[in-house]
Amino acid sequence: MEIASKFMGPGTTNTMVRINENGSVVGTIIVNCEGFPETTTLDSLTAATYSNHMRNLSASASHALKEIDVTDELRVLRLVSKKTEAVVAPDEDFYLVVVMRRQKK
Amino acid sequence: MEIASKFMGPGTTNTMVRINENGSVVGTIIVNCEGFPETTTLDSLTAATYSNHMRNLSASASHALKEIDVTDELRVLRLVSKKTEAVVAPDEDFYLVVVMRRQKK
Repeated sequence: MEIASKFMGPGTTNTMVRINENGSVVGTIIVNCEGFPETTTLDSLTAATYSNHMRNLSASASHALKEIDVTDELRVLRLVSKKTEAVVAPDEDFYLVVVMRRQKK
Repeated sequence: MEIASKFMGPGTTNTMVRINENGSVVGTIIVNCEGFPETTTLDSLTAATYSNHMRNLSASASHALKEIDVTDELRVLRLVSKKTEAVVAPDEDFYLVVVMRRQKK
């Protein structure tokens, strides 16, 4: 969390704490543009696996959108699976990944 | 729509009509496993572009999930961009793609 507040401003830590307070959130990761986790509330192995895959998916989604409409821009990518939900919010230098438990309806 | 009801049962047409009745829906596409649109309410060029990209993205997302947890399975992939929202629901032989206008909040 220290790295987050040093490099990304104090707002980052607050945002991560706020997101983690949500009962269905398993953990959050801030991923750098190379696909490595900068800071996370998950264990390192899970964070590294998610970081890499989510960065790649987000980049592919962004490219696909640009091919459909050049002026369009990816805001959020959400993967709902049988067990979990993962949300990626890409920004200029970093990606925010939030992993959640599946909400049963 | 005829192809849809012939190959995928009469339920398909009803589902597509029901989804299209939602005001924010621009169109729906049923994509086969090769990434070609089987039936759609969009124009053919848009449908073909979306079909190909969404099939690829959905497959990549599915692979990524399997690498994180082998027993997991992709249910829904949602792309929110500045202008539109696209949802992909993969099934065994077909993918359902729904393109929507961005809901302003």
